[in-house]
Amino acid sequence: MIEFTPEVVKTVITTASYIAAGAAMMAGMGPGIGMGFAAGKATSAVRRQPEARGPIITTMLLGQVISASTGIYSLVIAIFLIYGI
Amino acid sequence: MIEFTPEVVKTVITTASYIAAGAAMMAGMGPGIGMGFAAGKATSAVRRQPEARGPIITTMLLGQVISASTGIYSLVIAIFLIYGI
Amino acid sequence: MIEFTPEVVKTVITTASYIAAGAAMMAGMGPGIGMGFAAGKATSAVRRQPEARGPIITTMLLGQVISASTGIYSLVIAIFLIYGI
Amino acid sequence: MIEFTPEVVKTVITTASYIAAGAAMMAGMGPGIGMGFAAGKATSAVRRQPEARGPIITTMLLGQVISASTGIYSLVIAIFLIYGI
Amino acid sequence: MIEFTPEVVKTVITTASYIAAGAAMMAGMGPGIGMGFAAGKATSAVRRQPEARGPIITTMLLGQVISASTGIYSLVIAIFLIYGI
Repeated sequence: MIEFTPEVVKTVITTASYIAAGAAMMAGMGPGIGMGFAAGKATSAVRRQPEARGPIITTMLLGQVISASTGIYSLVIAIFLIYGI
Repeated sequence: MIEFTPEVVKTVITTASYIAAGAAMMAGMGPGIGMGFAAGKATSAVRRQPEARGPIITTMLLGQVISASTGIYSLVIAIFLIYGI
Repeated sequence: MIEFTPEVVKTVITTASYIAAGAAMMAGMGPGIGMGFAAGKATSAVRRQPEARGPIITTMLLGQVISASTGIYSLVIAIFLIYGI
Repeated sequence: MIEFTPEVVKTVITTASYIAAGAAMMAGMGPGIGMGFAAGKATSAVRRQPEARGPIITTMLLGQVISASTGIYSLVIAIFLIYGI
Repeated sequence: MIEFTPEVVKTVITTASYIAAGAAMMAGMGPGIGMGFAAGKATSAVRRQPEARGPIITTMLLGQVISASTGIYSLVIAIFLIYGI
């Protein structure tokens, strides 16, 4: 019969949590690409109508914040996994 | 005969759940790219017709919320895996 | 009964932390692509209207800083994992 | 009771550090793609307005340096992991 | 008590170093894509204005050298891992 002491249990679970946190953070790749695309489009929009800079930047920021959401979900899950909240 | 105590069983399952939660969160990559693309297109649309800013941003938000869905599915599954609801 | 000495526990957890930190850093791929896209767009925008260089570069920088966010989350998580804060 | 000699501890941690350093360096993929995109855009911008070569190259370099940031984060983390700073 | 002879220690660390060096080199994918994009843009730029060949090639080379940076970081880390500098 295989038995684990409480310490072994804790070690194994902590190990898994940390590896999972690292894996979860990989999702940051996507928002990075997406938000950069939005930044590029905003840059060329500002070139064409520098006077519309206000609404262009507002739209970029609004869109980027929403694009960032999945990256933030991953950050939250990673923190949960590391600190075991 | 290999036998597991209930604690071993629980440890192995928790370990697998955490690693699976980390893997699930990786899906966030896709919506991040997609929502950023929508944000970029909205930015250049606002440049061309700043007076149509309202409907442009509404359309962007609606599209992004739907694009976010797979990221949210992953988040839900990850939370289920971590908290064993 | 499987038992771990405190040293074994620490070793296993450190191992997992380091591997997870390495995995988390992979997220840097995304912002690198996104910020480069913004840089490319800014470059061609400056070509077309060298006189609008100020607002173009400002918009590029603002957008890039936000795109960098998921890369910075990963860096923070990696540092947490390595130094066990 | 599973026990590790100090040498085993060191070996296991070194092993993990090296593998993690290798994983972290993979992030260099992203900035490589992004900075190359900026270089390509600058090349065609210089063709169209060779006289604006100064500001074009300056903008390219500024944007590329920022795009390189996530690659440099990974390099730093890799060096930390290898030399155990 | 798990004990490793010095030979086992060396074997395990060397094994990990080599695997890590291989992983690190994967980053070369990115600069390869990016620099190829720049080369492609330069090729079509030279076709359109053969007389501007000098500044076009100079810009391409400058941009490519910088794009190569993350690939070079990986090369350095791989050499460190293999030769244990």
